Amino acid sequence: MDRCERTGRTPVMKCSVCRGPAGIRAPRHNAAFCDLHFREHFLRQVQRAIESRDMFREGDSILLGVSGGKDSMVAWEILTGMGLEVQALHLNHGFGPYSERSEEVVRAHAARAARPLEVRSFRGLMGVTFEQALRVSARPACSLCGTVKRYWMNRTALELGCTVAATGHNLDDEASALLGNVLHWQTGYLRSRLPALPEGEGMVRKVKPLFRVTDEETRLYAGLAGLEFVEDACPYAENVTTHYYKGLLERMEREFPNIKGAFYLGFLDRLLPGLSAEFRRAEHEMRRCPECGYRTLREGRCTVCTLKERAAGSPGKPDRAPPA
Amino acid sequence: MDRCERTGRTPVMKCSVCRGPAGIRAPRHNAAFCDLHFREHFLRQVQRAIESRDMFREGDSILLGVSGGKDSMVAWEILTGMGLEVQALHLNHGFGPYSERSEEVVRAHAARAARPLEVRSFRGLMGVTFEQALRVSARPACSLCGTVKRYWMNRTALELGCTVAATGHNLDDEASALLGNVLHWQTGYLRSRLPALPEGEGMVRKVKPLFRVTDEETRLYAGLAGLEFVEDACPYAENVTTHYYKGLLERMEREFPNIKGAFYLGFLDRLLPGLSAEFRRAEHEMRRCPECGYRTLREGRCTVCTLKERAAGSPGKPDRAPPA
Repeated sequence: MDRCERTGRTPVMKCSVCRGPAGIRAPRHNAAFCDLHFREHFLRQVQRAIESRDMFREGDSILLGVSGGKDSMVAWEILTGMGLEVQALHLNHGFGPYSERSEEVVRAHAARAARPLEVRSFRGLMGVTFEQALRVSARPACSLCGTVKRYWMNRTALELGCTVAATGHNLDDEASALLGNVLHWQTGYLRSRLPALPEGEGMVRKVKPLFRVTDEETRLYAGLAGLEFVEDACPYAENVTTHYYKGLLERMEREFPNIKGAFYLGFLDRLLPGLSAEFRRAEHEMRRCPECGYRTLREGRCTVCTLKERAAGSPGKPDRAPPA
Repeated sequence: MDRCERTGRTPVMKCSVCRGPAGIRAPRHNAAFCDLHFREHFLRQVQRAIESRDMFREGDSILLGVSGGKDSMVAWEILTGMGLEVQALHLNHGFGPYSERSEEVVRAHAARAARPLEVRSFRGLMGVTFEQALRVSARPACSLCGTVKRYWMNRTALELGCTVAATGHNLDDEASALLGNVLHWQTGYLRSRLPALPEGEGMVRKVKPLFRVTDEETRLYAGLAGLEFVEDACPYAENVTTHYYKGLLERMEREFPNIKGAFYLGFLDRLLPGLSAEFRRAEHEMRRCPECGYRTLREGRCTVCTLKERAAGSPGKPDRAPPA
């Protein structure tokens, strides 16, 4: 989807809704939109995502993870605009200027729009810095960060009396993660690709209301809605495999419009209903951490409790070099 | 996998088996081979493919489709060398010089090595030329060709008293077809990706003994075995989507060695066991053509019988332009 520059070389497009001049091409929907109808179209996609997966119910209180990036800022605006009860949570990882800028953007928005916001720090929650945790963890940075974020989203939701944990994951995030899972047939991870996971013992419901909209569409919506957001990439995110898969899908999308949508939405509609046995097995094998009660695939303590213990026991152990 | 040129700039590799000088790199097996041990390794992969899927049994008579390309020529040599009873079938599609050269290569090999060979022509089997069939068909050329080939492989096998139909499809063929099926979740096609399909009423067993070896490995083996084969691409094969997927997987393989193997073999080992319901459904919904008895997803006559009838009824109808 490109913004038309309205030069002589760009053919004049008409909005698929009002037939007025359209500045936004949406090849994956075989459509073009004026600014107003693009925003309507985007909101309709989010509404459809929410309704099709029964994400929210009467009386729900939502904890939304906000990083300060375009996706979570857009989700924050849209869910609040729908009249839902949204409590935002920002987790500061302590990644230097990147984290400072992110917290600043999130706090500024909360203050300006008078939105409830909780801010926590990685160190405050885990007792050690991200660097220290990374040194004692066998995981790559993105995996460690994701695990810790998911864990604290759930714990904070329970603590604040929220019934749902929402995140800004979009179609590109889910399709690229699915591609990675599928290329290696990590069938145990397929369940995590669901845009709505029901609540369970000690676990709130988990939802991804942006799962039908792309990176580019969300960036465009954020711009049209005048939302400030952090454009910088996380300093740890270089050479990450999911970025490779995102790039791959982006190039394929140019060749075959809507292949991302066909791939991810087709997975939900066509593969999952056929995946009965294997799928139930993964769910069935989940255990509870004896320390905190969090759902885990491991025997004994969950990853986060193990990590906290190990990091606390060896705060200065330089067994893994920090990245340059 | 590259052939070392043994110049000063190429580091000297050692064969993973005999530790002698190795000219062949095999990153997907984290190995290097001398010519002799590469051939042994390749044969072991084919043997393992055959045994793991129980492809051949005592008393089997095999009909092998031979196009004249590297894959079928290699399969012809290896299966015959294993002492199996192999009858080759070449189908001449009438694609001008490409088809003439292919038939010539196949006939020359059969004569030189004294191997049984049947040659049929598209026109002789279908009553019309490929061009004429294409004009009345709604399918792209590769889909039409594949359907007709699979149909006549089975019919000819039954006619000649063969119990198995074998083809030279390799890991690249299967992985790229699977990628296409998976990106669009064509779950009904997943069954066709199996390297061995059991016999059924009116259907012989179908096997793909090269499913564990790549395009490049097979080309190398053909060269080392001194086999003549047709290098030219089929004139209809330009801009074909499966070529796009092959290229994509090839580029990924350079980034992540053995991703093709992990993807296709993981599908067999990890996804398929979990795919019970959907998988059985596709199999269950198969019908029989009332005209010829061939297995079909359609109600009424199968694709080939329908095509023959339509092509015969409108032999000169120019409703679809032939390719330039």
